[in-house]
Amino acid sequence: MWADLEPVGRDPRGGYRRFAWTDTDEQLREWFAAEAARRGLAITVDRAGNQWAWWGEPSATTKAVVAGSHLDSVPGGGAFDGPLGVVSAFAAVDLLRDRGHAPSRPIGIVHFGDEEGARFGVACAGSRLLTGVLPVERALALTDADGVSLAQALGRQGRPEPAADPDTLNRVGVFVELHVEQGRGLADLDRPVGVATQIWPHGRWRVTLTGQANHAGTTPLADRRDPMLDLAALVTDARAAAERHGVLATVGKVEVDPNGVNAIASQVRAWLDCRGADPDAVAAVLADLARFAPRQESWTPATVFDPALAARLSGLLGDAPLLPTGAGHDAGILAAAGIRTAMLFVRNPTGVSHSPAEHAERADCHAGVVALTDALAELTR
Amino acid sequence: MWADLEPVGRDPRGGYRRFAWTDTDEQLREWFAAEAARRGLAITVDRAGNQWAWWGEPSATTKAVVAGSHLDSVPGGGAFDGPLGVVSAFAAVDLLRDRGHAPSRPIGIVHFGDEEGARFGVACAGSRLLTGVLPVERALALTDADGVSLAQALGRQGRPEPAADPDTLNRVGVFVELHVEQGRGLADLDRPVGVATQIWPHGRWRVTLTGQANHAGTTPLADRRDPMLDLAALVTDARAAAERHGVLATVGKVEVDPNGVNAIASQVRAWLDCRGADPDAVAAVLADLARFAPRQESWTPATVFDPALAARLSGLLGDAPLLPTGAGHDAGILAAAGIRTAMLFVRNPTGVSHSPAEHAERADCHAGVVALTDALAELTR
Repeated sequence: MWADLEPVGRDPRGGYRRFAWTDTDEQLREWFAAEAARRGLAITVDRAGNQWAWWGEPSATTKAVVAGSHLDSVPGGGAFDGPLGVVSAFAAVDLLRDRGHAPSRPIGIVHFGDEEGARFGVACAGSRLLTGVLPVERALALTDADGVSLAQALGRQGRPEPAADPDTLNRVGVFVELHVEQGRGLADLDRPVGVATQIWPHGRWRVTLTGQANHAGTTPLADRRDPMLDLAALVTDARAAAERHGVLATVGKVEVDPNGVNAIASQVRAWLDCRGADPDAVAAVLADLARFAPRQESWTPATVFDPALAARLSGLLGDAPLLPTGAGHDAGILAAAGIRTAMLFVRNPTGVSHSPAEHAERADCHAGVVALTDALAELTR
Repeated sequence: MWADLEPVGRDPRGGYRRFAWTDTDEQLREWFAAEAARRGLAITVDRAGNQWAWWGEPSATTKAVVAGSHLDSVPGGGAFDGPLGVVSAFAAVDLLRDRGHAPSRPIGIVHFGDEEGARFGVACAGSRLLTGVLPVERALALTDADGVSLAQALGRQGRPEPAADPDTLNRVGVFVELHVEQGRGLADLDRPVGVATQIWPHGRWRVTLTGQANHAGTTPLADRRDPMLDLAALVTDARAAAERHGVLATVGKVEVDPNGVNAIASQVRAWLDCRGADPDAVAAVLADLARFAPRQESWTPATVFDPALAARLSGLLGDAPLLPTGAGHDAGILAAAGIRTAMLFVRNPTGVSHSPAEHAERADCHAGVVALTDALAELTR
């Protein structure tokens, strides 16, 4: 399966660039459909555009146990973030069948669209649309860096307008998302697989720094209103505030107008990502940055995964470590929508993610497949 | 003439975006040719791609007095930077004819290509190619933000490969470039027109700040190598060093990889523009920034315009103020190539340039045309 995925959506600068509703995305969808067909799994596409493969026929009364993740990436993303969960789900079905397992209820595999939000700026767009927490009108009006709206992007790919899909959601009894760990929690504990307890509260803010465009060669320093200096202050202050309050804060995206070598910038737009275990500490960072007038683009409260399910899976998997994460996931969206949800993490030796250097050892990936197989077997006994 | 130019190459974000070797550039070239043809002026295009209109026929022995400037712009540029010099040159020819002036030698009007270097990064590319200071091989290999080389851009517009053109240069006896002032020197002196003494030495440096791409939500602050923090230090330090040494320093262009909201940047590239009256002070700023390893992309020493010509024009124009400038111009390239060269500046009430807010009063523009007419009349008596 990896060999087929490996060449799809390569970023010329390294790693992958698999954005939603592109030709690359279509190739990933074809790959998913082919893997499902090869196993004789029935394929459905929900009204939000996510793909599902079914072993057995789920209903509102005979709900399925579903595994899966996403296939899209950030620009310059790694090979594992997302695809590991989908590949492992297909491999787990193979292993269950090798073991002669007869599931007591249907098993599903899901491919959520646009988890990273790299193109249109809203993370977990596929699961948010599915559960209805992202209104369709707002989603359709989102635009990418080229000014293409989500509505236009769907039209170009011949895809229908999305909608919430409570019927599909109602056929999901339990969701288990396996994911490469984005951090070194398991590496520090020297364990290949762990179980997630919660996703930290996290948010995104947009800061618009406005100055006065002018000629870099002729404008006295005292006459300048240069928003690049404000950006420098924002980056420095955000880091200091994050250290002070014990959370994470990152300025990872910046746009400069007009972005000319010999022109003082007229406007700099910067995006702040801030998260941590304690939402009050995140709020304190934002309060410290109030002079930059940050405008909230998204806020997701802490998502606690079903503690009984997490404990059960940890016990099943040889007392696998229980650990929180700072990263958002489709599993968090489904948990917030009331679905019983768990996450399995596979060890990341360096902790590096959202980078071409993201890595997981083959033996650990195999341990992840076995763990997911055991979890699905337990949940469909 | 302004009415025809006004709609060409509008930047959707305000002002103008007139880049070299684009369809917009072709429209500007057609405008120039039409204005020349309307006046019965012979049109030539030199081997470097610059346009010339001739009243009379210049030669190496009967050299011409030439006025003119450029028509391209920075992104979000103003209406006057460049076009004011070309429009005023055509208007001066009209006024000379109205006065019944019979020039003792040919008069030319020039439209230099790609003065701003906004697309390919080298300012005054047209005049640098003409004079041979920009080698053709280096020029052809320059690339724009989309990775299109200058060679490809020329090919797409059906333009021939450029070359130095000593024959054309040898027909130019004197060059007078009228330009909107980029600063408030004339506004502070309450005078509509001034004469340039020199262009400050100036240079561009590129700074590549490399970090480690990683997930913004999971990487502990202590584990990060975030080049955005280095950018903040560069911007802050450059400003402080410029103040310390009494010169100008600007970071106006920044590129971030991968530029994702939830990704710690892997690399930030920033460009530093630094200039001032004293080249040693510019060097001192760069020495203070040595830890950022700035790589020089261009350096232009001070260009002193012919002092006798400047004094003569100042006297002719009612003791017009003599003033230096921090901005590079094609006039500086021609002066460095040994052509007798002068510049006239028209008052800019706010000093703002390289901005949609760039402005010159109509009365001052008219005073500029009269001054240029008087200068051309004096030089072709």
